Amino acid sequence: VTKPSRLHELAELVRTGQIAAFVLAAHQLESADLADVLSSLDEDDRLAAVSALPPELSGDALAEMPEEEHAEDTLAALHPDQAADIVEELADDDAADLLGQLDEHTATRILAQVEAPERADVERLLRYADDSAGGLMTTRVVTVADSATAAEAIEAIRRQSEESEGFIQVYLTDQEGHLHGMVPLKGLVTSPPERHVREFMEDADIRVHPEEAQEHVADLMSRYNLLEVPVVDGNGRLLGRVTFDDVIDVVEAEATEDLLKFGGVSADEDLSATWTAAVRSRLPWLYVNLLTAFMAASVVAVFQTTIARLTVLALWMPVIAGMGGNAGTQALAVTVRRLALGLVPKGEGASVIGKEFVVGLINGVGNGLVVLLVSFIFGEGLKFGVIVFLAMSGNLAVAGFAGAFVPILLEKFKVDPAIASSIFVTTFTDMCGFLLLLGLATKFLL
Amino acid sequence: VTKPSRLHELAELVRTGQIAAFVLAAHQLESADLADVLSSLDEDDRLAAVSALPPELSGDALAEMPEEEHAEDTLAALHPDQAADIVEELADDDAADLLGQLDEHTATRILAQVEAPERADVERLLRYADDSAGGLMTTRVVTVADSATAAEAIEAIRRQSEESEGFIQVYLTDQEGHLHGMVPLKGLVTSPPERHVREFMEDADIRVHPEEAQEHVADLMSRYNLLEVPVVDGNGRLLGRVTFDDVIDVVEAEATEDLLKFGGVSADEDLSATWTAAVRSRLPWLYVNLLTAFMAASVVAVFQTTIARLTVLALWMPVIAGMGGNAGTQALAVTVRRLALGLVPKGEGASVIGKEFVVGLINGVGNGLVVLLVSFIFGEGLKFGVIVFLAMSGNLAVAGFAGAFVPILLEKFKVDPAIASSIFVTTFTDMCGFLLLLGLATKFLL
Repeated sequence: VTKPSRLHELAELVRTGQIAAFVLAAHQLESADLADVLSSLDEDDRLAAVSALPPELSGDALAEMPEEEHAEDTLAALHPDQAADIVEELADDDAADLLGQLDEHTATRILAQVEAPERADVERLLRYADDSAGGLMTTRVVTVADSATAAEAIEAIRRQSEESEGFIQVYLTDQEGHLHGMVPLKGLVTSPPERHVREFMEDADIRVHPEEAQEHVADLMSRYNLLEVPVVDGNGRLLGRVTFDDVIDVVEAEATEDLLKFGGVSADEDLSATWTAAVRSRLPWLYVNLLTAFMAASVVAVFQTTIARLTVLALWMPVIAGMGGNAGTQALAVTVRRLALGLVPKGEGASVIGKEFVVGLINGVGNGLVVLLVSFIFGEGLKFGVIVFLAMSGNLAVAGFAGAFVPILLEKFKVDPAIASSIFVTTFTDMCGFLLLLGLATKFLL
Repeated sequence: VTKPSRLHELAELVRTGQIAAFVLAAHQLESADLADVLSSLDEDDRLAAVSALPPELSGDALAEMPEEEHAEDTLAALHPDQAADIVEELADDDAADLLGQLDEHTATRILAQVEAPERADVERLLRYADDSAGGLMTTRVVTVADSATAAEAIEAIRRQSEESEGFIQVYLTDQEGHLHGMVPLKGLVTSPPERHVREFMEDADIRVHPEEAQEHVADLMSRYNLLEVPVVDGNGRLLGRVTFDDVIDVVEAEATEDLLKFGGVSADEDLSATWTAAVRSRLPWLYVNLLTAFMAASVVAVFQTTIARLTVLALWMPVIAGMGGNAGTQALAVTVRRLALGLVPKGEGASVIGKEFVVGLINGVGNGLVVLLVSFIFGEGLKFGVIVFLAMSGNLAVAGFAGAFVPILLEKFKVDPAIASSIFVTTFTDMCGFLLLLGLATKFLL
């Protein structure tokens, strides 16, 4: 762990052209720290720094860059030979992640310069979707014949020294590569050398196919506390493994997506997107919102003469509708998260909706009493007060109901409940709030 | 991995009183699956099932229950002797997590029956805050004297067989327990027996104190891709270790908190809270919202005579204000997440705010043109159309600005930007939307 001030100094070395001193110091850094130094530089300085670093350092740093775009741009700007040197030093999964984001022409040019065995691994990985188990896995696996003894297994680990970088389990396979089990390192360490690994191997029942969605892989590993999970093809042949550090990245990416969708932003908007990309991602949602806003306005239109005769209602409209939106969003946040974590068991949807309705109603009464009091203080009379009370309690009860009902319904129809829920719910509460307030006022005050 | 239908069958066995058959089948399950079966039962059946299971099975299952409350209630309902048997079988960190949630009296009664060495470990862990490194760590650590050879280290692992359950690193300590380094298992496996571990140990520079916040520990492990991180006291003496599976739980818990806070719900509302707890957690936020809603209403109050003369404005109020709220929420979601992931470097706040302002303005113009057109179609004249156009573009630009400015400002003042941002931002956009629409209308249409 290097202090931020020290990282700042290292960036200054590059900026002031003291590249040799920078390279010397970079050897002492963790990759993630070196990645931060590179991130803080502008494009030209970053390119100069990466070109000067030995490829094994720059490769790991590029793989750890917080904003992937920076890493991709740098790789694309290097001479293909130099980029290929870096790719060769990368773990195959990191290499595929970076190359997969480049335009095909550039990626092909770089790959052509990569040595054959590594190139084949990366090309194989590039065939899998980014967000699949195949897209996460590394093909570097330590395998041992299932007939091996502990001593033979240890010898095999020594031989496969490159594959074994960062390995955690030894996989037992037969001659056709079918996965039969795994041997945790601890077993190897503590076993007598002549013992057959088959005797103390563990089942490899928990395995995934390369097409599996990354969320599913992350759920599995988190659920069963796995350090890594083997990836096998349809015939049970071992293809690679997904490791725990990928899972943390997936969980964080999912959390980002969920929050963005909840805020009405496309889940694929890069957090550091340019303003043009941000407009493209958000404008469509705003148009959908505008459409629903017109629906709410049409409710107001029906009661235009009421408002003309009693303009004070225009003050209360945003209060009642806005509070409904807030209460609905509360119910929505809790329900969306429960659904995401699988905490709404089948058949319990109704009880979840019921609870949120009750919570909304009680909060509505609580806020209704305040608005009754306030309207009374401002001299609008008891009858008016009772109407704002009823509109508030009713709208917050509806808000609780809608906040739970809408996402549960969307989930039933296999629509991601995070994405469109908030638009539906606030439309619901806007319309219902206006209808209650203006409808009651029309009936009892005119 | 057991199929859901099979888990359902197992739950049925308990419900129909076939406990012996259930216990037999439970031996074949992963703890997380057994936990799901127990979760799906009602309280009495769950208690019967847990009582009948051998403590090593029920312990792990309780530790894995998705809703911690269920596990705590079950433990509290058991006879203290039986609960103590379960606690003894648990990893000390899981035991402390469960006991820490019970009322003190019950926890003390159970702990009194726990065997001395395990009790001391749990009692030590109970002293740390739940959300600190100390609250996450296990004290079960495999240590080896820093003078040991590889063979002696392997012998030490065999001797510490209980501590070594699920261990990943061997820690090197001196006689006073000061941490000097770690030996990854791979090094032990491939080293000649007579080699001193000191020769191939790795630095243990990345370490945490028990008081460290769990988010910080999770960030560290995720940043440096660590399987585990050692916890040391102020003098560098090894206290325990935090493992990667805790980190995934922390990352998920943080994501839940962030989404709840974003939705205006206290971060400590349990997702399965009863309705009374949910009301307690949400009503205060709604009252804060109500206060800000009154502020927005006061802007409308200023223009009451304008509305009386031109009631069509009442239709456009929710459209302009609501769209501002949506655009502000978009900017907010992106900015809050960028801040949470550390993607807003020092000194770049202004450029982030600038970008969001531009995005808001462009989206405002895009939506402004639509409302201009719509108002024109409804025969409200070009002058009116230009006013709704200006109000919409202006309000969405303000929304973009506020959506980025508010959380960045809160972060500057060390206030969690997720928590109160949305209230401030929507108050901003409501007030600004009303002011623009009604102000422009008063000036140019009356």
